[in-house]
Amino acid sequence: MDNFIDRLIDSIKEKNSPIVVGLDPKLDFIPSYVIENYNNAGEAIFEFNRCLIDAVYDIVPAVKPQLAYYEMYGLDGIAAFKDTVDYAKEKDMLVIADGKRNDIGSTAEAYSKAYLGEGVFDVDCLTVNPYLGIDGIQPFIDDCKNNGRGIFVLAKTSNKSSGQLQDLKLEDGRTIYEVVAGLIDQWGEETVGKYGYSSVGAVVGATYPEQAVKLRQLMKKAYILVPGYGAQGGTAEDAAKNFNSDGLGAIVNASRSVMCAYKSDKWKDQFDANSFAEAARAEVLDMRDALNKAIAKRG
Amino acid sequence: MDNFIDRLIDSIKEKNSPIVVGLDPKLDFIPSYVIENYNNAGEAIFEFNRCLIDAVYDIVPAVKPQLAYYEMYGLDGIAAFKDTVDYAKEKDMLVIADGKRNDIGSTAEAYSKAYLGEGVFDVDCLTVNPYLGIDGIQPFIDDCKNNGRGIFVLAKTSNKSSGQLQDLKLEDGRTIYEVVAGLIDQWGEETVGKYGYSSVGAVVGATYPEQAVKLRQLMKKAYILVPGYGAQGGTAEDAAKNFNSDGLGAIVNASRSVMCAYKSDKWKDQFDANSFAEAARAEVLDMRDALNKAIAKRG
Repeated sequence: MDNFIDRLIDSIKEKNSPIVVGLDPKLDFIPSYVIENYNNAGEAIFEFNRCLIDAVYDIVPAVKPQLAYYEMYGLDGIAAFKDTVDYAKEKDMLVIADGKRNDIGSTAEAYSKAYLGEGVFDVDCLTVNPYLGIDGIQPFIDDCKNNGRGIFVLAKTSNKSSGQLQDLKLEDGRTIYEVVAGLIDQWGEETVGKYGYSSVGAVVGATYPEQAVKLRQLMKKAYILVPGYGAQGGTAEDAAKNFNSDGLGAIVNASRSVMCAYKSDKWKDQFDANSFAEAARAEVLDMRDALNKAIAKRG
Repeated sequence: MDNFIDRLIDSIKEKNSPIVVGLDPKLDFIPSYVIENYNNAGEAIFEFNRCLIDAVYDIVPAVKPQLAYYEMYGLDGIAAFKDTVDYAKEKDMLVIADGKRNDIGSTAEAYSKAYLGEGVFDVDCLTVNPYLGIDGIQPFIDDCKNNGRGIFVLAKTSNKSSGQLQDLKLEDGRTIYEVVAGLIDQWGEETVGKYGYSSVGAVVGATYPEQAVKLRQLMKKAYILVPGYGAQGGTAEDAAKNFNSDGLGAIVNASRSVMCAYKSDKWKDQFDANSFAEAARAEVLDMRDALNKAIAKRG
């Protein structure tokens, strides 16, 4: 399979859309008539995801199912995850599984086989946590190289307490997230594709725009996955700080603001539960405009 | 439900065994006749685990299934995980799911519901990764308090490159793993049980005995889960450094050395594939003796 990052950038360019839609389907987010029509939570979740994918696949290159929201519904939930992955790929979307997996070498290999290998969950890309250092990351990098897959390594996460460890200052003046950024750039050297970016990317929360500026400098080759847009408070201008002057370099995630657009103050006069998918599409189109404008202004 | 750590220590005392058996069932570890008898990898894995549990449940307080090895066999594998959890609990063993989960608050809540809530996977304890700070940990702590569950937070992992981040020195001279140890002790304050230990424990690899001495001092209330014994090179004397003078304070994991005892140099003359469960029991009894001696010598 082609290099993950080339496939991602090709699709971002084609759809003019540096956006990934997070599929974090808490049952609270799903209209009750969808839930009532199905035998279990997993079936309802898949139906919800299927409608969302149908509504946005032509304007968004990728979806990012968050594994926690499938695991919390047990085997039915994980079956819904698998069905969602397969359906998104049928619609020519890339799938980034958000699992933040991490373990020692032999176990990281098992996780990598599960997600970045063939025949199990078979996604295009997985988020991973760097706390164990390179030998917990190498098995994933090997599958990036051998199977055309990608990873996004946590650098600076979007949550309030992310600084508790990530912002600590070392003897040499660097913060932990800067050290991690340096490692990510180095870990990505062997998977650089035709646009100069690597299949080993980084996660940098839209809620930390100042840090994003620094991190963008430190990781020349890393694509940045930007969570925290919308519901978590990050703006298009904040997210734009993760992009380079080539207009590339980052992909911005929105989950709740898209999934729950139909009940948001912004859209609830135009849409209702019956048109949740149309509301999601309207929100994505708005986000695409706002982001592309903010990126152009920076450029 | 009673406090997790009290339930664990009661069982450790009753069985005189500070041991947890890791259930990391790669198909390579399982005798071929077991695999041939079943329709899929999940069924074979559960049968292997069932025999191991039957062989050790009276001499070991807990099992630690490693989620990666179930996820790598897809839905069948995860069904085997669930069956294994249920079977171990039937046999009055505690179950520590080794998942090293981590995410921002709302998503950590979903993970916690999946593992430390009721009615999904319903284990006693989960391993978690601290890279996101307290708001990624708090949802798990809440379930420790409310549902009598436990967590072990990664402090110093057993792998070779664990120092790449964990050993970095801060301006104030502390290493990252020392900072994490301080946080773990603080995070555990509200779940201290009758023995003075907390349901918020720490992971410290047996492969780093010097760091274990320091960490034992820094985390007065934390129980320590010690991986890295046996196949990874940690000895009973190394592992003993995680214990206190009360003879408590740690539980030592062995996975491969127990699961694959039947094909080890040490046991292969006495056992074969047909007696893999007996071999596992012999190895656990040996390990129990060696550990209890090493702990007594320290005391």
